[in-house]
Amino acid sequence: MTDIALIEAAAARMAGHIRRTPLLNAPLLDRFAGRRVFVKAECLQWTGSFKARGGWAAVSALAPEVRAQGVLAYSSGNHAQGVAWAAALHGVPAQIVMPSDAPAVKIANTRAYGAEVVLYDRATQDREAIGRALAEARGLSPIPPFDHAEVIAGQGTIGLELAQQVAEAEIDAATVLTCCGGGGLTAGVALALKARAPGLTVRPVEPEGFDDVARSLAMGRILRNATLTGSICDAVLTPQPGDLTFPILKRLCGPGITVSDEQVLQAMVLAFQHLRIVVEPGGAVALAAAIFAPDLGEVVVCTASGGNVAPALFRAALDRFAA
Amino acid sequence: MTDIALIEAAAARMAGHIRRTPLLNAPLLDRFAGRRVFVKAECLQWTGSFKARGGWAAVSALAPEVRAQGVLAYSSGNHAQGVAWAAALHGVPAQIVMPSDAPAVKIANTRAYGAEVVLYDRATQDREAIGRALAEARGLSPIPPFDHAEVIAGQGTIGLELAQQVAEAEIDAATVLTCCGGGGLTAGVALALKARAPGLTVRPVEPEGFDDVARSLAMGRILRNATLTGSICDAVLTPQPGDLTFPILKRLCGPGITVSDEQVLQAMVLAFQHLRIVVEPGGAVALAAAIFAPDLGEVVVCTASGGNVAPALFRAALDRFAA
Repeated sequence: MTDIALIEAAAARMAGHIRRTPLLNAPLLDRFAGRRVFVKAECLQWTGSFKARGGWAAVSALAPEVRAQGVLAYSSGNHAQGVAWAAALHGVPAQIVMPSDAPAVKIANTRAYGAEVVLYDRATQDREAIGRALAEARGLSPIPPFDHAEVIAGQGTIGLELAQQVAEAEIDAATVLTCCGGGGLTAGVALALKARAPGLTVRPVEPEGFDDVARSLAMGRILRNATLTGSICDAVLTPQPGDLTFPILKRLCGPGITVSDEQVLQAMVLAFQHLRIVVEPGGAVALAAAIFAPDLGEVVVCTASGGNVAPALFRAALDRFAA
Repeated sequence: MTDIALIEAAAARMAGHIRRTPLLNAPLLDRFAGRRVFVKAECLQWTGSFKARGGWAAVSALAPEVRAQGVLAYSSGNHAQGVAWAAALHGVPAQIVMPSDAPAVKIANTRAYGAEVVLYDRATQDREAIGRALAEARGLSPIPPFDHAEVIAGQGTIGLELAQQVAEAEIDAATVLTCCGGGGLTAGVALALKARAPGLTVRPVEPEGFDDVARSLAMGRILRNATLTGSICDAVLTPQPGDLTFPILKRLCGPGITVSDEQVLQAMVLAFQHLRIVVEPGGAVALAAAIFAPDLGEVVVCTASGGNVAPALFRAALDRFAA
């Protein structure tokens, strides 16, 4: 069960290994958005996304003799890199199950961190079944992408940093928007802020058409996405909120928000122009909401969760919105 | 005369106004470069370049009654934004003389910070003469782009941060590469490191064909560039090293290094891929040298000095090196 103590313990194990990412803002971005927008730049984290935190937290929490057998993860790409990187730094093997249509850069980087990558077909195969079989065959410890107490705790360390950073910026009330797939980041940040900065309210952001979390929150029970293909936001496409994450979201978060692919692409370009950071589509949904969604108040904090974007897609975004 | 005391005083005046930018690195970038590469990400600084530091240092150092009259700067773009931004935050007017061929984004941003922009023709007009006439007409205080004790001190605060950051990374010897135009950044960083991290040696980096500083260092006297057009690295194109900066460079720096436009474009793409930061050509010359120049030792620290890049040029870099 993730709570503030587990998050603080994860933060302690991360010291010296995980970056305290900057909270960025820019007057010209604020002018465009019509409100103050603060961006937690987790694209600058090791491996290019916040998933390095959950990976490190989970791998470091294993008993040494268990960890030595190796770890296994299934992931569309950022969790893959986070776990591969954390395993490499702990000197243990990692096997990563990735969809064959994951961005090439994510597959290549996961291999570059030293992990063995096993590809599967997202449309016809069940990654959890594949992962279970592989884990049993080699005695690997599975590190799920979000529904895992230590993974949630690892992502929650972002909330600890945010609590300090908004205090330094003399902000005591704000809406905090998170890029939300299965809810690990959102749950962790919500738990940390509830304990350390209770004036901040977390709201999850998803791509239009893949709003399982928003609908689940509205209905009060877990609902699934109808499909998992057809969005540019690969990093936040998950079947449904987790059994561990959803109760936390339901207890602590405000309503979900959705954004269009067009808004996401424009948010990526505004981040390029005004913050000089590279954000991938799934990592830009919260920024897109921070800029474009109505009725969020005068101060919005958002996560820029990852920056592992295919160059062709980034070029297309620039073509579309910075011509 | 800039010395460590003036740099420390500038740092004290900047507290709460200037960002302590992160020192980034990435294992996959190190693998590509064949050495450890640390990047001081000043593209994440306010206004998108380190020039916010010199601008703030100089504007804040003026006597209040003098400052109230307003300030004037001539600049290809980043110093323009730095001074415009600093003047706006001090509540004083700014007039900025910019070449008509400066990147449109830099002219637009300078205006957006509230400054009055006066355009001139880089090939036929003398910006210093224009600036002097304007300054006299309105009683404005000129803030030169590099040859000014407080501007050098402001840029030198990067050196103070670097000294702390390399110590945190347990590095006690390294080559420090700076993006070098007139030498303000290089001189300031060299002074700060001489006092706070004497195991680090600064070497200035310039674009091929615009290597006035490298040639001046080699000859021991100030030499000029033959031309100031024809490079993509607009931010570091200056006629010659300054009367204040050059003696500091001569006393403290190692030999200059030059890089090709091709190396600069590829460095921009590697920064996009591995560090998820946006770096402009002139701000990427030091990173290009850190990656491609021979015989720099096992650990190289470089400045990524700015990120105000025209989207079309960034797309071209991605087309060329991330296809």
